[in-house]
Amino acid sequence: MPEIKLNTINPIELSPGYTARFVHTEHMTFSFLDVKAGSASAEHSHPQEQVAMLTEGEFELTIEGTPVRFGPGSVIVIPSNVRHSGLAITDCKLMDVFTPVREDFRALSKK
Amino acid sequence: MPEIKLNTINPIELSPGYTARFVHTEHMTFSFLDVKAGSASAEHSHPQEQVAMLTEGEFELTIEGTPVRFGPGSVIVIPSNVRHSGLAITDCKLMDVFTPVREDFRALSKK
Repeated sequence: MPEIKLNTINPIELSPGYTARFVHTEHMTFSFLDVKAGSASAEHSHPQEQVAMLTEGEFELTIEGTPVRFGPGSVIVIPSNVRHSGLAITDCKLMDVFTPVREDFRALSKK
Repeated sequence: MPEIKLNTINPIELSPGYTARFVHTEHMTFSFLDVKAGSASAEHSHPQEQVAMLTEGEFELTIEGTPVRFGPGSVIVIPSNVRHSGLAITDCKLMDVFTPVREDFRALSKK
């Protein structure tokens, strides 16, 4: 079936305060995250292009050293291999879209 | 700048009742659509993989002849080259994500 209901996906704690539900398609990974206010993700990079957006709350991405604080109505584009870190300013609902698939996240779902 | 505010993007009428704001990245196209209740999109297909989701309203996608009616909280995956059509059951806010880029949509933005 082409329809996936997010509330049927097992949540995975990616790091403290970051709870993810993943949808992997042929070429993309969608990560639907509930993030607790104050929770930080360490600086990292990956070959996948990433696009981030929020449906609730306020989040700060620091991309190559430049902080961008954003909320619903904005789209943040992180090119391939660009270093970035994150910080939840408030409790957030964040969606990250990656292409190609995050095989590291797919492997987590199978544990 | 990596931040794109959706309210700064010029809307384009894709077809009657379908108003789109596009974000094109290196490998993906994001189409943020306002759709009026009762508006239909004709059956079509494209080589891009497509993922659809709603933030408001109810929409029906018919994928290879099978209708799927969905709302917020669902993710619909349309593989490459699979025929599909759409119908807004109510006024909707729909997001479609494509990979690779929809160069046909990018060309519309440049008109």
